[in-house]
Amino acid sequence: MENKEPLIITNKDDMRRWSRTAKAQGKIVGFVPTMGYLHEGHLSLVQECKQHSHLTVVSIYVNPGQFSPNEDLSTYPSDFIGDIDKLKNKAGGVDVVFHPKNLYDYGKHDGVVNARSSDLAEGKVVSCVENSGMGHETWVRVERLEKGLCGSSRPVFFKGVATIVTKLFNIVEPDVAVFGKKDYQQWRIIERMVRDLDFGIKIIGAELLRDPDGLAKSSRNVHLSPEQRKKATSISESLFNAKTAAQKGQVVCRELKDLVIKTIHEAGGKVDYAEIVDQESLEALEEIKSPAVFCIAAWFGNVRLLDNVEIIV
Amino acid sequence: MENKEPLIITNKDDMRRWSRTAKAQGKIVGFVPTMGYLHEGHLSLVQECKQHSHLTVVSIYVNPGQFSPNEDLSTYPSDFIGDIDKLKNKAGGVDVVFHPKNLYDYGKHDGVVNARSSDLAEGKVVSCVENSGMGHETWVRVERLEKGLCGSSRPVFFKGVATIVTKLFNIVEPDVAVFGKKDYQQWRIIERMVRDLDFGIKIIGAELLRDPDGLAKSSRNVHLSPEQRKKATSISESLFNAKTAAQKGQVVCRELKDLVIKTIHEAGGKVDYAEIVDQESLEALEEIKSPAVFCIAAWFGNVRLLDNVEIIV
Repeated sequence: MENKEPLIITNKDDMRRWSRTAKAQGKIVGFVPTMGYLHEGHLSLVQECKQHSHLTVVSIYVNPGQFSPNEDLSTYPSDFIGDIDKLKNKAGGVDVVFHPKNLYDYGKHDGVVNARSSDLAEGKVVSCVENSGMGHETWVRVERLEKGLCGSSRPVFFKGVATIVTKLFNIVEPDVAVFGKKDYQQWRIIERMVRDLDFGIKIIGAELLRDPDGLAKSSRNVHLSPEQRKKATSISESLFNAKTAAQKGQVVCRELKDLVIKTIHEAGGKVDYAEIVDQESLEALEEIKSPAVFCIAAWFGNVRLLDNVEIIV
Repeated sequence: MENKEPLIITNKDDMRRWSRTAKAQGKIVGFVPTMGYLHEGHLSLVQECKQHSHLTVVSIYVNPGQFSPNEDLSTYPSDFIGDIDKLKNKAGGVDVVFHPKNLYDYGKHDGVVNARSSDLAEGKVVSCVENSGMGHETWVRVERLEKGLCGSSRPVFFKGVATIVTKLFNIVEPDVAVFGKKDYQQWRIIERMVRDLDFGIKIIGAELLRDPDGLAKSSRNVHLSPEQRKKATSISESLFNAKTAAQKGQVVCRELKDLVIKTIHEAGGKVDYAEIVDQESLEALEEIKSPAVFCIAAWFGNVRLLDNVEIIV
């Protein structure tokens, strides 16, 4: 059976108008923001979204605001035609693909100030948006949750994420939005932001998807050699072992973390961080007493992989 | 003729529901955020709002997020019954008064972290919200425009304003919102925030209102003694003189500012700042070539007064 072609919208005003029209007709609008190059993990978010809405919007937009100038914005992979095909044939079709060109281009304005060279010279940490001097200067920060875990090694990342999600929420005006628990910190940041800023939007956290060998699905997995891939399964294996150990009463985090770090290290991986944190506050725990999540970022070769397991004892 | 009683809404969800119902019926919803203790300046914002909307919502909420712990949150004046009466009898009535108790109370949550005592001990600049440890941690910052002018002496003020306006926009979901040009920097910050974060809301800047003696209308004017009040008119008089001089060709800002500072000083006032800035970027100007605004904050006794004039040469 042929699934429907999505309507492709590139303009902010057209997007908002479509959404308002749909909502005026009583439709629940669901939204899945992505940076494209879709894999089965994304498609599972779309499936989840459909459980909660009448109409589904997927955005495909690589957000320069979450990359710092020394990160890989220019080489970020894209495959728009392939993405549309997957949405149509593997996710059962969606209603709209929102695919804007540049969400920071506000047109020419007298008096709009671009990034000051002094900011850059002083070594202030900036995103690609600030670096290129587009005049955008409003940032949303979730000040505690953005620290730690991925925030430590990527200082502009979460302010870029919170800001682009705010922009997309204000353009798409959805009733429901779905975020993957694969990016656990990101999901919690968006949840907190929606609470703190009173967005009238329900946030759904969708479960992490794994390949049969246990590796968490990610666009980056294709960059692993077959050998690296085999070794990278040490991440999920050691996380599952830690979860089992915790549930058997081994709740001292230092010991659980040491075991995981050792396992990944022996498999040839380099651990960026391995932290057991509270599921909501993301504060590091010494012992697992409350609902926790074990979050890991580790390098295999040039590929940085994220994974996590929730642990409730 | 008796004007209608406003519907008084105190709950966020009720407010959003009212607005969505109104909009579903094709009504344009206008919004005027205030901190209450209304005077004719506020009422003129309401009148302006009615020019652009079918239905008008006025919020009355003293926002702790824009006060630092050493500022006067606890003594901020209020007169809710008087405010309702003024809206009804002097502004021709409004449809809704949104009067929430505490917009930072999100109920009990496991894992919600309150302000860390370490933050406070380190002397980090915090608002009353952070100081009281309510767990709110998401802040909207308009990073360039929030510096300078009032931002210099009130470091948490504009992040508090941008954040509460975001919250109110997300709760009231208006089509149009009105801000007074009396608070020129605030108006420009909100305009820029709406642009940068893609809010689907039209922002109207309403003209500053003056008493017959020239003094800009403000809740704080009642605190002036008759003698102070007379002297305080030196602010508007010197601003008008500067404008006239500029339009006659005297465009060197240093000289215009010196004249204004001298006049206010001689009248017994203490100038907090006197700056001639670009109307959009709020960057200080050396010469008036582009549309400018002369912004002043000055103390007479214990009363800090704001005023400004736009100057186009």
